[in-house]
Amino acid sequence: MPDSVVLAVDFGGTKVEAALVRPDGTLVVGSRLRAATGRSAELHDLEASVAEVVRHALGMLGELGSEARLIGVGIGCAGPIDREAGAISPLNVPSWRGYPMRALVERIVADAGHRVPVVLEMDGVAIVLAEHWVGAAQGAQNVMGMVVSTGVGGGIIAGGKVVVGKTGNAGHIGHVDVAGFEGENTFGNAHVLEAIASGPHTVAYARRNGFAGTTGEDLAAAYAAGDPVARAAIERCGRAVGQAIASATALLDLEVVAIGGGFSQATPDLFDFIRAQIATHHFDYVRKVRVVPSGLSGEGPLIGAAALIYRADLIPA
Amino acid sequence: MPDSVVLAVDFGGTKVEAALVRPDGTLVVGSRLRAATGRSAELHDLEASVAEVVRHALGMLGELGSEARLIGVGIGCAGPIDREAGAISPLNVPSWRGYPMRALVERIVADAGHRVPVVLEMDGVAIVLAEHWVGAAQGAQNVMGMVVSTGVGGGIIAGGKVVVGKTGNAGHIGHVDVAGFEGENTFGNAHVLEAIASGPHTVAYARRNGFAGTTGEDLAAAYAAGDPVARAAIERCGRAVGQAIASATALLDLEVVAIGGGFSQATPDLFDFIRAQIATHHFDYVRKVRVVPSGLSGEGPLIGAAALIYRADLIPA
Repeated sequence: MPDSVVLAVDFGGTKVEAALVRPDGTLVVGSRLRAATGRSAELHDLEASVAEVVRHALGMLGELGSEARLIGVGIGCAGPIDREAGAISPLNVPSWRGYPMRALVERIVADAGHRVPVVLEMDGVAIVLAEHWVGAAQGAQNVMGMVVSTGVGGGIIAGGKVVVGKTGNAGHIGHVDVAGFEGENTFGNAHVLEAIASGPHTVAYARRNGFAGTTGEDLAAAYAAGDPVARAAIERCGRAVGQAIASATALLDLEVVAIGGGFSQATPDLFDFIRAQIATHHFDYVRKVRVVPSGLSGEGPLIGAAALIYRADLIPA
Repeated sequence: MPDSVVLAVDFGGTKVEAALVRPDGTLVVGSRLRAATGRSAELHDLEASVAEVVRHALGMLGELGSEARLIGVGIGCAGPIDREAGAISPLNVPSWRGYPMRALVERIVADAGHRVPVVLEMDGVAIVLAEHWVGAAQGAQNVMGMVVSTGVGGGIIAGGKVVVGKTGNAGHIGHVDVAGFEGENTFGNAHVLEAIASGPHTVAYARRNGFAGTTGEDLAAAYAAGDPVARAAIERCGRAVGQAIASATALLDLEVVAIGGGFSQATPDLFDFIRAQIATHHFDYVRKVRVVPSGLSGEGPLIGAAALIYRADLIPA
């Protein structure tokens, strides 16, 4: 199907994006659009944002020539989700609790005249599929894809198949206990990775220790300039991420963990801090896990959403 | 194959056992034998113990009539293991590091005149298969089988298939971080579930708080008699187990966790402590995980070892 395309939708805590994605994992130029979501968004605004980006992408189908054919829609969403119902309750978007996201997109796509499968999974599932398909985890059978950003999330491939779990929520690495840190309980559980090592929580830790900046970018700049508090904060983030990866690897015997997300790019040294922590683990098989930067560009979440259709063979029913 | 049997071998930190197991998951009467292993055992003694229990079980084949046929050998072993090499390095048996256990059993079985497949997996894999086959997790597709005893271990079924991981070591729930406790670093990693909540570590915690007994049985008796230190120790164990199950469920979206092992039977209240901890979790899908006592008798590890052959369809290549 050389002219087939997939409509990819990525719904996150701060934005929703859509694009058309080709079978080789590239985006159709001009099809990508984003709109804001966020903690203060109202239900109606969110629906309008989704409709806007989806309609924009579908509008590009006509530009692809008469042979172009939409074969499916993949939606990656911030968790938790209810996979069977196609409903989402993103931590960061309080006004959507059990919102029927799949039905909304189905309706918009049907109104545009398309009758195709619409698949909804957690964004972490999309990410790990993208790493496996065209990113840093190609060829590996036991993989975690991770995002360290405003939140900390992920997805898992075990034995060559995506782990979705009973309700579609497997992959929440940000909600795994990490020992020996003081976390902040802003999004649910304290003492879990996200409450310690997300971008905002790492900045908050630095601020408690005298840092004057307010963003992850500020912290990255201070780190680059040799600021000792920034260094302590980013080292702490790396230790916590390393411990969580060690726990996940003890449990899943992973081969490779690919990490993306804005805050993961604060400094390449972050990966050294993560690896140094994992190197202290007692088990040989845990110490051997490879921790690498994501092989995806900023298009990763959309490529992953498209992979929900193109790589559907890796997803259990 | 009504008269087919499997030779099951369970190699643990304190003992090795073997038996013949029928296709319905029952043991052939008289075929079961155990011998000691343990921290002080020498290489030669360990090999002799394995040979003794294996030969005893094989010796019962003749009693089953001329139709009886050995169709395979399943070996469950304390981890870590090297699945591809069939080699084991049990934490509790320091004299075996990278020991070629599968080859040893293959040789003993071949010397007795049998040419059959010999499969070696971690004991946690055997346990979760047994719970799924004839125990407390029948019909579930996302399961953890756990043992809380001298050590803390487990195995995982995700999407209806066993998770083995890259080297065969998936399932080490005892080596997952648990926040907010002081662990003891006796078998590797501090701050992990096993270092906090195993039987011996729970007894050690009670002793640090004035308890005079020395065994898990002592602690169970003191708990039953209303001793407040024993209660605090077992409640602490339950909280730690609950946190680790919450982490594993956040990551794997499990449906049911079945817990066996001697110390898990210290008091039925232990399960209430575990469930009370999980009930504090922020995520609905985590709070919904069912935590139940193992549905297996003391024969569970042997039934699970036999399941490595009988339920081989659940194990990825």
